[in-house]
Amino acid sequence: MLGQMQDWELRLPTLLDHAAREHGTREIVSHWADGSRTRSNWAGVRHDALRLSQALRRMGLGGGCRVATLAMNHLHHLSAFYGIVGAGAVLHTLNPRLFDDQLDYIANHAEDRVLLYDAAFAPLVERLRPRWPTIEQFVCFDDLGGGRGEYEALLSGEDGQGEWATGDERESCHLCYTSGTTGNPKGVLYTHRSSMLHALASLQPAILGLEPRSVFLPVVPLFHAAGWGLAWSCAAAGAKLVLSAVNEPAVLCDLLTSERVTHMGGVPTVWLAMFGHLDATGQTPPALERAIVGGSAMPPATIARLMEAGVKVMHAWGMTETSPIGTAGAEHPEWAGLGFEERVGKTALQGRVPYGVELRCVDLDGSGRELPRDGRSPGALQVRGPWVVQRYFGAEEDAVGPGGWFDTGDVGIIHPDGTLQLTDRTKDVIKSGGEWISSVELENAAVGHPDVAEAAAIGIAHPRWDERPLLVVVRKPGRTVEAEDIRRFLSTRVAKWWLPDAVEFVAELPHGATGKIAKQQLRAAFRGYSFPD
Amino acid sequence: MLGQMQDWELRLPTLLDHAAREHGTREIVSHWADGSRTRSNWAGVRHDALRLSQALRRMGLGGGCRVATLAMNHLHHLSAFYGIVGAGAVLHTLNPRLFDDQLDYIANHAEDRVLLYDAAFAPLVERLRPRWPTIEQFVCFDDLGGGRGEYEALLSGEDGQGEWATGDERESCHLCYTSGTTGNPKGVLYTHRSSMLHALASLQPAILGLEPRSVFLPVVPLFHAAGWGLAWSCAAAGAKLVLSAVNEPAVLCDLLTSERVTHMGGVPTVWLAMFGHLDATGQTPPALERAIVGGSAMPPATIARLMEAGVKVMHAWGMTETSPIGTAGAEHPEWAGLGFEERVGKTALQGRVPYGVELRCVDLDGSGRELPRDGRSPGALQVRGPWVVQRYFGAEEDAVGPGGWFDTGDVGIIHPDGTLQLTDRTKDVIKSGGEWISSVELENAAVGHPDVAEAAAIGIAHPRWDERPLLVVVRKPGRTVEAEDIRRFLSTRVAKWWLPDAVEFVAELPHGATGKIAKQQLRAAFRGYSFPD
Repeated sequence: MLGQMQDWELRLPTLLDHAAREHGTREIVSHWADGSRTRSNWAGVRHDALRLSQALRRMGLGGGCRVATLAMNHLHHLSAFYGIVGAGAVLHTLNPRLFDDQLDYIANHAEDRVLLYDAAFAPLVERLRPRWPTIEQFVCFDDLGGGRGEYEALLSGEDGQGEWATGDERESCHLCYTSGTTGNPKGVLYTHRSSMLHALASLQPAILGLEPRSVFLPVVPLFHAAGWGLAWSCAAAGAKLVLSAVNEPAVLCDLLTSERVTHMGGVPTVWLAMFGHLDATGQTPPALERAIVGGSAMPPATIARLMEAGVKVMHAWGMTETSPIGTAGAEHPEWAGLGFEERVGKTALQGRVPYGVELRCVDLDGSGRELPRDGRSPGALQVRGPWVVQRYFGAEEDAVGPGGWFDTGDVGIIHPDGTLQLTDRTKDVIKSGGEWISSVELENAAVGHPDVAEAAAIGIAHPRWDERPLLVVVRKPGRTVEAEDIRRFLSTRVAKWWLPDAVEFVAELPHGATGKIAKQQLRAAFRGYSFPD
Repeated sequence: MLGQMQDWELRLPTLLDHAAREHGTREIVSHWADGSRTRSNWAGVRHDALRLSQALRRMGLGGGCRVATLAMNHLHHLSAFYGIVGAGAVLHTLNPRLFDDQLDYIANHAEDRVLLYDAAFAPLVERLRPRWPTIEQFVCFDDLGGGRGEYEALLSGEDGQGEWATGDERESCHLCYTSGTTGNPKGVLYTHRSSMLHALASLQPAILGLEPRSVFLPVVPLFHAAGWGLAWSCAAAGAKLVLSAVNEPAVLCDLLTSERVTHMGGVPTVWLAMFGHLDATGQTPPALERAIVGGSAMPPATIARLMEAGVKVMHAWGMTETSPIGTAGAEHPEWAGLGFEERVGKTALQGRVPYGVELRCVDLDGSGRELPRDGRSPGALQVRGPWVVQRYFGAEEDAVGPGGWFDTGDVGIIHPDGTLQLTDRTKDVIKSGGEWISSVELENAAVGHPDVAEAAAIGIAHPRWDERPLLVVVRKPGRTVEAEDIRRFLSTRVAKWWLPDAVEFVAELPHGATGKIAKQQLRAAFRGYSFPD
């Protein structure tokens, strides 16, 4: 028997309607690449978005057409998010940090028909334009540094009085590619429904804790991992958004202070750089309440520092395939009785799932056996739920296994209270004697040595143990640390059987487009390596 | 183009699955009618609910059958919520405070087939049993005071290993009747989808602000206004629930302290009674963070008192037809600069809509003209959204007008920032010279007089002004206040043209089943009244 309640399709532009109607004067601050700063608000964003949606439909671009952006965080990029999905088209956020070949592949695979781009990326666009035959129209967002400012010209031809495109909530809205370390990038095609459920859930205190008085400074780019869903979540809450097209610590710290930012989200390296600037200038963020950290593990010392300043630290885990929120580190009821150091340690883990995400770890041996939540069994982390990918864009097969579980490629441990602890990537974990050594934990321990600039651990085939760890180290300039010093340093920090069988020194380690160590390339370089006797 | 994300039907039992899996040891404390207290947890609730759902389906009661409850707040009532909807049946929460004739009408109209009831209501059940022919089975929840304890016996025959009934998220799950002051009660038939979206939205800081470390003591009964959705919301958050089958201030205050309650929700009279007890015993709630207030307006002095104690006061408005959340009083960004008294005044208003609710006021003259959000134009409050009623259960016609707007029967003013201020009920507001006088505001001003126990304002037909207000007053025992005293008292508190043309004194005012003044009955008593010259 069906119920008799009202209903509407859960489509993203309804969030902007809400924000413009109920929080219309709540500001959107935009710090541009040239250092200028402009102020708009949710009503202004809606006016711009509606005009873009009118323009796109006038150009025949609705119904699932891919409209790409290649841009940093700013007001126009935000209004384009809504304008594109509001036209019924698919927003395709391109990551300007990728290599040319990846951008070539991605835009062609997506069959993008329009590209909205920042003037700062004009050289990249000019270079790739001949390789992007599906793109019919290029629209420069701004007029900075000789840019053409075509976006505002495009909008000026429309009156902003139209309606959003209507349709089913399961229609696609946003496409975001992951730059996998193996094979071609893969696109995740979100639906209005999946992004809406994600946005509604994200407001809860255990995740973003967003409300109308919140002021959010996303340091994560809108093009990375679905922009953490922030363009949608902040409108759902009616929060003030502070967007910066540059990531210089001085600018971010100034925004933190002058805009009285309450919420900031970013990767750990951003926080470290900002602390450096705050220390150098003696500033204290006047209103910061919550730091949302994701992308990689945050060092406990950084967490402690934020917590000492009264900032709630939400360590989160997620990926493009999970929209991206998978887990978030809300305070547990049991933590009330713990000391500061212990709470820092708990906060450094990756938190728990909200309603809407299910998590499990299965045996790394490939048997598919689900592991107990015992806080000590590392396994392949799998996830499912209504904002998790089912099939990559254009793929012939689903990306999920039996039971609908998506394999994240991460190695994790689940604690009895449901807390996730990430330990490695499945392709990097080192199998030794039927047990698993976390390459990440070895590396983290090694970079704790004062003479080590960077370190990478990889598994080397071993006749008896299957694999044994090799540690590859970059020394800090002018230092002379030797292999035995490092093994001695590690011996009090990791289990004895985790100690690398050898330490090799290199001038530099290979890195991927997003700055992570390219382990695959490193393994190739050490193919055929054999440990000294 | 459809997206390619995973999906599942938004059905209520998935909330309990989440709570049991991720917050299984989080406690459910139940204070029973006999003063005993038991402790279960979300895993225990799920085990009970699954067994009830198995038992119901074994009895052939799934697929939309109505299963009624007549019970206070306790563990069994909570597990029955999930067990009934988990069987695919419809939970029908009966309000034991209604008159026999209303309960007779409602259970028959709903065609209830099972009734789960508290032993305390056994006399009521015995009295009405002959008038409830559709009810095949009566199950007593507890064995207190000679009750039969049939609920646990029913569950003991099942293993709790089954699965929930599956189906579309737009299937019905819960039926709740409103005891209208005119005509027969009307049933609102919620869907899994409407209740799930309501639950997800309710967690946000601007509404309930619920997270795993929260401890919620609902003083609102689970049978009233859909139990404020708390059975669903607390599971979604993994919060601890403290349920009390009795509403004695001493018990509630003891629970506040001993269970370290962080969130409490109730009507204003509950807060007043609790303050009386706290004052008498010198207690201070050790962990209270948030007071959610609804049902009627809370006096500013009570709000101030909570705020002074550091408690966040969320003044909310809603009704059975809105699941029930319509608005909630989150702090505005602009309030930071206000003084304490001003913030109390702002908090006393009814707050703003979250995403998912749209609000407007239309002219009380029946023209349907939408009024400006100017903070001074009272109008008929209308609402729409995916958790607002479309059609009452069994009705032939929709309950909404053009554009899908549901008329709430309330008179409200919407401020420029979207804040709702309720001023009256449309049938009680007094039309004088083309303007509107709020009966509620007149009454509130009148009860401020130290000699007035209770007051009601009604409109009396007037040849020149259409209507003019008559104030009907109950004096406090032993007091001799006269009409002119009251008019003089009011003259500095309301606009001159609002002053009642006459004040009549009565020994008592008529009240409805839920304790509100029965204005309709009062108007009937004064039919034909004419003002003295």
